[in-house]
Amino acid sequence: MARTQGSHSDITGPRIRRAALRLFARHGFAAVSMRQIAGEVGVQAGALYNYTPDKQTLLFELMRDHMDALLAARAAEAARAGRDPMARLENFTRHHIRFHIERPDEVFIAYMELRNLAPENFAEIERLRHAYEDELETILRNGVAAGDFAVPDPRVATYAVIAMLTGVNTWYRAGGRLSLSEVETLYWDMVRKAVAA
Amino acid sequence: MARTQGSHSDITGPRIRRAALRLFARHGFAAVSMRQIAGEVGVQAGALYNYTPDKQTLLFELMRDHMDALLAARAAEAARAGRDPMARLENFTRHHIRFHIERPDEVFIAYMELRNLAPENFAEIERLRHAYEDELETILRNGVAAGDFAVPDPRVATYAVIAMLTGVNTWYRAGGRLSLSEVETLYWDMVRKAVAA
Repeated sequence: MARTQGSHSDITGPRIRRAALRLFARHGFAAVSMRQIAGEVGVQAGALYNYTPDKQTLLFELMRDHMDALLAARAAEAARAGRDPMARLENFTRHHIRFHIERPDEVFIAYMELRNLAPENFAEIERLRHAYEDELETILRNGVAAGDFAVPDPRVATYAVIAMLTGVNTWYRAGGRLSLSEVETLYWDMVRKAVAA
Repeated sequence: MARTQGSHSDITGPRIRRAALRLFARHGFAAVSMRQIAGEVGVQAGALYNYTPDKQTLLFELMRDHMDALLAARAAEAARAGRDPMARLENFTRHHIRFHIERPDEVFIAYMELRNLAPENFAEIERLRHAYEDELETILRNGVAAGDFAVPDPRVATYAVIAMLTGVNTWYRAGGRLSLSEVETLYWDMVRKAVAA
């Protein structure tokens, strides 16, 4: 029985995305051609257009899927962490580090290739990014209201904490001096103190 | 009197660097050709090679000059700030934000294009980056020794503080809700608390 377009697509689509992710992270979006992506997957360049209308759509979908996965993971974590602002902030801190260290190419592209998104795609990625930032800002505001935190500007503190945590990706290597769990604890110590009342 | 090669080079060299910086930041190193850089400057592609041997050298020199300028600025600031760890840390924090916000393209390239440096060039940029990090780590260690700071891992705290401060570049826009001086004060408040004894 011939494979259907559907089942074929189920296998090839993810392979195309993985190849595009790898190539964009290595060379940059503007330097990678659809032909190169096809070559990496082992299909004809023309066949790629059965799976994606263009390179812009590939980039957008990689960034959108990354943010969707992050927001879905946060929803699950937040449900576990309960309502206490301190417990929520610790959960956010440790989860951010773990989630991002496992996805170095996605994180690199999310920062580097914003400039190459079409305006409507940029707006959608910004919306998802703001949704993520809003959770942390709400945790900080709730902690201030409860008297647990002293944060003069919760939006700026949100940017500061996220940048600090994402920075782990630039230096941490598995098998080095510190385990990831030790790194999480060091960062949580700094975050906790930075927002302390 | 005909212009000498020297005086011509004095004018054209910096224009080539500025054009390369702008184009690398906009499109990425791998996507930009020497021909494009020449076109931006308004010279023939062949003339570019009077000023630089190749694109790799242009990239390396942009990144090296950025780090040299940063280290020279730090040496001047450190001389002014004196020996007290708290005063030194505040000076480092405010200066890092001011220096980097004025150089968005250099900062973007310094992070994004490390992957495109030849190994010997990468090693040299890493050496300069470590010299910068070493100053902050020394400030933190001196503050711990003086009993002013509690920092369980000064190297990790160095990475955390630098990532947090450089993150200002991703969101701050002049003319927005906050002045740069207000932003500096908000970040200093967080840094001070994060390392507090």
